[in-house]
Amino acid sequence: VNVGGVRVGGVAAGVKPGKEPDMAVIIADRAVPTAAVFTSSRSAAAPVVVSRAHVADGFIRAVVVNSGCANAGTGESGILDARRMAAAAAGAIGCSPDEVIVCSTGPIGPPLPMEAVMPGIGAAVTAATAAGWESAAAAIMTTDTHPKLVESTMTVDGGTVRTVGMAKGAGMVRPDMATMLAFLVTDALVEPSVLRRVLGEVVDRTFNSMNIDGCQSTNDTVVAMATGASSTEVPPDRLVGLLEGPATRLAEMIVRDAEGSTRLVTVRVVGAADAEQARHVGLAITDSDLVRASFHGGDPNWGRIFGAVGVSGLEFAQSSFAVAYEDTWIARDGRQVPFDRLGLRSRLVGDFQIDVVVGDGPGEARILSCDLSPDYVRFNAEPS
Amino acid sequence: VNVGGVRVGGVAAGVKPGKEPDMAVIIADRAVPTAAVFTSSRSAAAPVVVSRAHVADGFIRAVVVNSGCANAGTGESGILDARRMAAAAAGAIGCSPDEVIVCSTGPIGPPLPMEAVMPGIGAAVTAATAAGWESAAAAIMTTDTHPKLVESTMTVDGGTVRTVGMAKGAGMVRPDMATMLAFLVTDALVEPSVLRRVLGEVVDRTFNSMNIDGCQSTNDTVVAMATGASSTEVPPDRLVGLLEGPATRLAEMIVRDAEGSTRLVTVRVVGAADAEQARHVGLAITDSDLVRASFHGGDPNWGRIFGAVGVSGLEFAQSSFAVAYEDTWIARDGRQVPFDRLGLRSRLVGDFQIDVVVGDGPGEARILSCDLSPDYVRFNAEPS
Repeated sequence: VNVGGVRVGGVAAGVKPGKEPDMAVIIADRAVPTAAVFTSSRSAAAPVVVSRAHVADGFIRAVVVNSGCANAGTGESGILDARRMAAAAAGAIGCSPDEVIVCSTGPIGPPLPMEAVMPGIGAAVTAATAAGWESAAAAIMTTDTHPKLVESTMTVDGGTVRTVGMAKGAGMVRPDMATMLAFLVTDALVEPSVLRRVLGEVVDRTFNSMNIDGCQSTNDTVVAMATGASSTEVPPDRLVGLLEGPATRLAEMIVRDAEGSTRLVTVRVVGAADAEQARHVGLAITDSDLVRASFHGGDPNWGRIFGAVGVSGLEFAQSSFAVAYEDTWIARDGRQVPFDRLGLRSRLVGDFQIDVVVGDGPGEARILSCDLSPDYVRFNAEPS
Repeated sequence: VNVGGVRVGGVAAGVKPGKEPDMAVIIADRAVPTAAVFTSSRSAAAPVVVSRAHVADGFIRAVVVNSGCANAGTGESGILDARRMAAAAAGAIGCSPDEVIVCSTGPIGPPLPMEAVMPGIGAAVTAATAAGWESAAAAIMTTDTHPKLVESTMTVDGGTVRTVGMAKGAGMVRPDMATMLAFLVTDALVEPSVLRRVLGEVVDRTFNSMNIDGCQSTNDTVVAMATGASSTEVPPDRLVGLLEGPATRLAEMIVRDAEGSTRLVTVRVVGAADAEQARHVGLAITDSDLVRASFHGGDPNWGRIFGAVGVSGLEFAQSSFAVAYEDTWIARDGRQVPFDRLGLRSRLVGDFQIDVVVGDGPGEARILSCDLSPDYVRFNAEPS
């Protein structure tokens, strides 16, 4: 895995109590067009506050990421720590601190152990190589069970463009937020303003269309860097596909690796006024503990979906409501229709798909979700 | 348990598959001042639609309730079934169908088994007596483990007023909704318009301030009837206390009997702009699976509360945020403060209380909630 124009690395800095890798860097050869989307939480973490300002001009030289501590709920000293991280990376690389994006992920509340963080940043910069993606993807993990790394190539006007993406997820994942971090690096030539617009569009359909536990996080960050190393210009319409492919695969990897989950459930909402409304309804459906518990049991419990849509804020006519599990319609016109319950249940043993009709509008959305399991609760009930 | 001016009863009609009681009636001697608060869900059940119209004039003669089927997600024929229930009760009692409130609770989707419902209503009316509250409270249960019945007396200007309340809860309880049903009958003399206003106020502070699973239901109904049998007039200011006492106790009984829960957790939010905003924030905190999972583990995980407040829609300053568990402050000024973690954990073994400060406004609210347990998930994953 590699993409032109960047060095990447991950090391164990000692932020986590064990000897696992916990510090990653992505270093471009020069400041390159970069766009980022951050959590909308009012409880946004310090690195989000700092990075939002740094990326505002559309150019970034490097990204530094620690796992093991979210640097969230840390007040003014947390902001200073995030700035010190940017300055340490800038010093080691030889650039300005405001050309560095800082990300942190882990428990909310504890302060960053700066005595481990500061030398760790230097070590990660030293370790960075063009082929370092695996070690970086490992270093950003928290409760993930495996690193999440994808690559893709696209031919544009005879030139070949490569894109690499990495992400981490696991819990507190219902982006708009979520301690979800994702990084996409392409060697395409792209204008910063175009990159920003396209990333927003792609994130809405990918990372912002997944829901593991309805819990939005303080640290969510998606970064897209375009190094231009391929010297191939990519027009906006092709750029959507360039970023959406890897983003879709990373989003699916995150949901598949959700804490305690045993299956991936895709909820397609159609008939809303627009895509944004459909996405909102799909997220409201998968926010419901009762709905996600029914996913765990493979139970085609459309009534719970009906209940969740009813309180989603959507103004819909009950008579326009319909639900299918795996293409078997079990509710139409707002009421149950006869269906082979045992036959359907026998097909809900692994991943499955649900279609939900909420009206006759053109808006549709696809939400990637998973089941709520006793293991999820057990895992998250454990005191830290 | 009894209160002047009503007969009450519960029987087994065969709506539930077993021989458990599943049909209850409350019959006043005449049409009496009655107020009701219903779910705000767009997926409101048929009995809610029918009853909302019947209670609009402020007078009701009787309430008929079945458990075992919610008559929700049943379309136009569900509305007809709810009307037939009202008509059957009216016929047996000798009143007009629009003097009857109809309630149903149970699974969403299946149609009411009218062949069991219709004779069951007649049997319940025949069985009703002044002392029938226990059998009625048993007949409205679904996954409740025990009936929920309270009584209170109040002396007003030398007269004594009695109030009886009964409720059911267990799951899908995050009112504004929730398949939560509660019935309060007082023998006080009250104007219908006063009863309506005071009930709304009391419900906001009691039934609408509890949260079991963040899942709002299609059938929530709270009914208050004032039979006047005591001939004691109760002024509005005393009426609040008259209804709030029993409502508070019923709400606590519902949360204590929540599916799979092992402890009651009280979340007090202070410093909001007003009580409504504080209640909203408290519900958002207890909506979070991660927060309720930490309740299960007795883990003072204030960071998850901070994260939940950040996405509640509240515009707050992080520096104004503070959290205490059992009066031990563990976060102030938006950051963690030193505290004896093991000592505090040792005090979080049973019920506990959390204080959350979100600003310096006068608004406060108290939310009754409980833990999210593996048993809750296991129970609700089971296909019906």
